[in-house]
Amino acid sequence: MVNVAILGFGVVGSGVAEVLTGTGEGIRRKADDLLALKYILDVRKFPDSPFAPCFVQDFSVIENDPEVQVVVETIGGMGAALDFTERALKAGKSVVTSNKELVATHGRRLLALAAEHQAVYLFEASVGGGIPVLRPLSECMAANAILEICGILNGTANYIFTRMVQDDIPFEQALKDAQAKGYAEQDPSADVEGKDTCRKLCILSSIAFGWHLLPEQVPTRGITQITLADEAYAAACGRRIKLLGRAIAREDGTVCPYVEPHFVSQEDPLGGVEDVFNAILVKGDATGDVMFYGKGAGKLPTASAVVADVIAAARKLERASYRPWAPNRPEAVASPDTLATQWYVRLAQGELAGERLTIPQAQAGESGWLTPAMTRPELDRALAGKDVLAVIRVLD
Amino acid sequence: MVNVAILGFGVVGSGVAEVLTGTGEGIRRKADDLLALKYILDVRKFPDSPFAPCFVQDFSVIENDPEVQVVVETIGGMGAALDFTERALKAGKSVVTSNKELVATHGRRLLALAAEHQAVYLFEASVGGGIPVLRPLSECMAANAILEICGILNGTANYIFTRMVQDDIPFEQALKDAQAKGYAEQDPSADVEGKDTCRKLCILSSIAFGWHLLPEQVPTRGITQITLADEAYAAACGRRIKLLGRAIAREDGTVCPYVEPHFVSQEDPLGGVEDVFNAILVKGDATGDVMFYGKGAGKLPTASAVVADVIAAARKLERASYRPWAPNRPEAVASPDTLATQWYVRLAQGELAGERLTIPQAQAGESGWLTPAMTRPELDRALAGKDVLAVIRVLD
Repeated sequence: MVNVAILGFGVVGSGVAEVLTGTGEGIRRKADDLLALKYILDVRKFPDSPFAPCFVQDFSVIENDPEVQVVVETIGGMGAALDFTERALKAGKSVVTSNKELVATHGRRLLALAAEHQAVYLFEASVGGGIPVLRPLSECMAANAILEICGILNGTANYIFTRMVQDDIPFEQALKDAQAKGYAEQDPSADVEGKDTCRKLCILSSIAFGWHLLPEQVPTRGITQITLADEAYAAACGRRIKLLGRAIAREDGTVCPYVEPHFVSQEDPLGGVEDVFNAILVKGDATGDVMFYGKGAGKLPTASAVVADVIAAARKLERASYRPWAPNRPEAVASPDTLATQWYVRLAQGELAGERLTIPQAQAGESGWLTPAMTRPELDRALAGKDVLAVIRVLD
Repeated sequence: MVNVAILGFGVVGSGVAEVLTGTGEGIRRKADDLLALKYILDVRKFPDSPFAPCFVQDFSVIENDPEVQVVVETIGGMGAALDFTERALKAGKSVVTSNKELVATHGRRLLALAAEHQAVYLFEASVGGGIPVLRPLSECMAANAILEICGILNGTANYIFTRMVQDDIPFEQALKDAQAKGYAEQDPSADVEGKDTCRKLCILSSIAFGWHLLPEQVPTRGITQITLADEAYAAACGRRIKLLGRAIAREDGTVCPYVEPHFVSQEDPLGGVEDVFNAILVKGDATGDVMFYGKGAGKLPTASAVVADVIAAARKLERASYRPWAPNRPEAVASPDTLATQWYVRLAQGELAGERLTIPQAQAGESGWLTPAMTRPELDRALAGKDVLAVIRVLD
């Protein structure tokens, strides 16, 4: 029997308890007969919970119990989550988490700490919720050199775009709808400003390329400036607007990572991804394009990914680990300014070289354009002196 | 250093040699520094191959060399492939294969034989070519009860449908095009009659549900009867025709497996899968719908999946294995005749209850229909005495 402790009884933590014990609504069976839930750490009290006997408020109870082999960290953030993760690993306990902020920032050090103490640190649920992607990327595609990661990694942002297009409502109203449905937090900045996508991209990139890419190295632009006019111009050229996280491996060994909204063709596998779904496209040198698709968030999908990692940690221990990440390589980070693509530009007035797009509801004087392929500095020179309302990169 | 032997130097076998050694066109690096290619078994001689020193013609050289730890079986079929696989496993060597026919038919016994001899038997490449799906299904989704597998599993059949629709050419001509491009064999029966899809479905189902489903238990219908008129009627109701392999878990513990063409909505993630691409949709009780997408065949994609399994076998040995399959359960196989769905029906004349579809190019008297949801026996009763040209199930 492998004893498990859960840190934090929020949405994901309570889902983990339900999936582990097979008691959740819609859950057909217990995840694994070898696993037992021993502790749940939370500062709050839950006297009416079916898990009431498991609750503790002092982490040292878990830390000092040699029967606990796997610790699930679903506290989130960087404070207690980091402290408890380090202490659990140092006590030789494996740690499983969905905490993307912690992994993106401290993943290399925590993976090394786990290895040092014959434990594992696993975080499949930190990217893509219930979609299996980190293990397939690290194990099943191990015979490939990864050429590119390109993903719709934030379900909230994608839901907002879907509502804007399908219901013809502006960004602010779509955001309120997402909040009402529980998809967006009351403070939605991590989702709509691209930070969440950036963290997930860093985790994917570190696994794909083997060295720790840090969030502050990723130029990140969110979706708060996107208007219905931009969506209409996208539709006018057979495209949709999607917030993409991309990391492109170059021939010279550098990696070009960035997060920004893109015009994506409706024919592209990523172009058809709607609502809260996520999709991660991975290009391998041998296998070509592979895509992983599913709900990127939600209590039970995320919890089931956590529990799958708990099973892997319990059954296999150090064999289940991701490979270690090499140190950050600032010299290997290329700027997206070097990346030549087409661009969509919306002007308040005037003209531009390229293909003109037309929409029936255009404001007087306004116009939409698709430029030839060029870098962002080249585009900025072409736009000098013009009254520019919007610029969005076009995915090839 | 882990020594590898490849059995059969055909398309996949030669691709495995290239990916293993990092010498293939477009391959950026050697797959793994720990792996060395020691032998290639083939009855033919390849004096000009860069791998010429590796060739042997007698399997017992490999069988009796204690330095060989992993054997790659890319012979195909059931004769020598089965004999050599058994002998390799009995000699304690792990075996990796892309041979779906062998796995679908003898998988349970070979997995057990491997476990008995502290070796592993891995076959990620047997389903979906380079798409990681078996390991994600068996490990990353381990906390889910699988509710359904539904996949476009044969790239040749999907390519034929795409050519029919996009080029407005009939089945026979699209098949010739697929053969000219090397996608279809000179004897295309395994692809177009659904046998290949059936074998892959058996492998997916056995991993998902934990007991060995056999090909002869899967009602299988191919695509040879599909006409351009059927494609036109599909388009008239926003759908595409796709050959699907499905295995549906029922509340009573039975599984309903079958292979047949379906009308699939263009809005469905499977509806947008074109050309030689494959896609496998997996429904989990906790994680919901997850889809895996990519090229389902081809030399390098398949070879890279084989080599990833070789790396797993070399690095982890018995830890990398799939869980054992329980014996076949004939009593747990439900007939698709029990499955109520809508149906598309094309009549030479007369009418039918349901929604009438119209296409400009309809033959005189012919008509297309979408029925209400009903089982196949109910449909057959409704069609009694009518002049029926085509019947295709509609995916919900």
